[in-house]
Amino acid sequence: MTTLRYCVNGKLVSGIAPTNRGFAYGDGVFRTMRLQQGVLQDWPLHYQTLVADCSKLHIVCPSAELLMQELKFFVQATAEDNHTSGVIKLMITRGDGARGYAPAPVSEPSRIFIQSPMPVYADTVFEHGVALYTCRTRLGHQPLLAGIKHLNRLENVLARAENKDSQFFDGLLMDYQDQVIEAVSGNLFIKQGDRVRTPALDQCGVSGVMRQKMLDWHRTQGVTVEACRLHLADVYSADAVIITNSIYGVLQVNRLDTQTLGHHPWAMALRSQLAHVTY
Amino acid sequence: MTTLRYCVNGKLVSGIAPTNRGFAYGDGVFRTMRLQQGVLQDWPLHYQTLVADCSKLHIVCPSAELLMQELKFFVQATAEDNHTSGVIKLMITRGDGARGYAPAPVSEPSRIFIQSPMPVYADTVFEHGVALYTCRTRLGHQPLLAGIKHLNRLENVLARAENKDSQFFDGLLMDYQDQVIEAVSGNLFIKQGDRVRTPALDQCGVSGVMRQKMLDWHRTQGVTVEACRLHLADVYSADAVIITNSIYGVLQVNRLDTQTLGHHPWAMALRSQLAHVTY
Repeated sequence: MTTLRYCVNGKLVSGIAPTNRGFAYGDGVFRTMRLQQGVLQDWPLHYQTLVADCSKLHIVCPSAELLMQELKFFVQATAEDNHTSGVIKLMITRGDGARGYAPAPVSEPSRIFIQSPMPVYADTVFEHGVALYTCRTRLGHQPLLAGIKHLNRLENVLARAENKDSQFFDGLLMDYQDQVIEAVSGNLFIKQGDRVRTPALDQCGVSGVMRQKMLDWHRTQGVTVEACRLHLADVYSADAVIITNSIYGVLQVNRLDTQTLGHHPWAMALRSQLAHVTY
Repeated sequence: MTTLRYCVNGKLVSGIAPTNRGFAYGDGVFRTMRLQQGVLQDWPLHYQTLVADCSKLHIVCPSAELLMQELKFFVQATAEDNHTSGVIKLMITRGDGARGYAPAPVSEPSRIFIQSPMPVYADTVFEHGVALYTCRTRLGHQPLLAGIKHLNRLENVLARAENKDSQFFDGLLMDYQDQVIEAVSGNLFIKQGDRVRTPALDQCGVSGVMRQKMLDWHRTQGVTVEACRLHLADVYSADAVIITNSIYGVLQVNRLDTQTLGHHPWAMALRSQLAHVTY
């Protein structure tokens, strides 16, 4: 039994052409989602984000109907092994192309689904939080690509490769101006008194679906989350720091490198509150 | 007859796994080279650059022996169709990987060769030069990746997609500080009196093999090419402007948008001089 399976343009094939622009140039976008009993969690919000991200790269996003049809086929084809739950990564690329950076005037975007098992987290991760290391790798500024979950992810790879110590759950990424931006694989929020703040992602970083859920949910509670410039001093002095993504949801950050961070019931409360918000 | 052929890890297969890190994250590097009668032009210099680029991403570059063996197999397998000349794109990626940014402690890098026909250039291109457009897309700064010909090329894709007008051969890329950096698919040099200058590539841009040949050749002539900060005013006022890459060699730039640029026999002379320098 393999632990990874994939479906390319609606077929269970073993590979994609190396001329696919996703491979040649990282010319595409992706989402990482939870599959529970064959259902993609928060799919409407993921799809809305896919459409927005594709649009910024001038890729015509495939219809939600086509994607759901291909997912259904994929999940059914692998269902006999009880793989109807797990992690689904969906990649949309500009499709196949000839040599050269210029996109073809018309090209059919490629749809690639990859299924993998749900990661197993220790209970302590949810109860007590996680430790982050500060990445030496800094994010460059590129407003044209900021916020997009695109396939050009070498900065994340380099940042993640820095860590050889399993005590750290993830890394904290800053930009070249010492601004805190995100975790390598998630977004970041801090609580300062009554204020909830998160880094603005107009110059770099990836805007995740759980980040959007945080903004939306707080709005329903009458709280405006401030998207702003944050620095390490804000993280150190915060009442609580959390990271979010679509797989683990909400996690409290209890330590940054060797320094213990603020502990507050806010993080645990958010975790259960957001788990009940579905799109 | 297809116009594109590929060879993956020494086999004539139709695809690569979508879990290959080159596809997932653009986690790899590439070279574009001329193949003439089965021989890769300037291979030693290309290989030296591959090794250096891989090293910056902490990828162990496959041996030159393995790559030449796989190329030979590939060229022989397709030789019956007279495809022993053309363009060879070689991609080296970190190999296959599980989900997540962290590279596996040990992974075998993937080698992908793609063959395509040599582009056909009009004679006027070599005799009279080419026109460039000024890209609205600006390059972001990322010193960790600057100079590397890596697979994260969305900026180039966006910059090339701006142009719908076939009168322009390529685009001129600047960074966010209005510094001229390169052409979308080549490097740039200007002649100002006795000085030869080219943009420094310590913050962004790709350092091509023809650029290195330019620097090396000028050194043998007792001329130091200055790698420095250049602006549009330098381009407009130059005696001559050229772009270089491994496929077309050296081309004079005769126009930037609507403005005619300096014309000087230097460009034509360089073209033939460098054509005789092989590694």
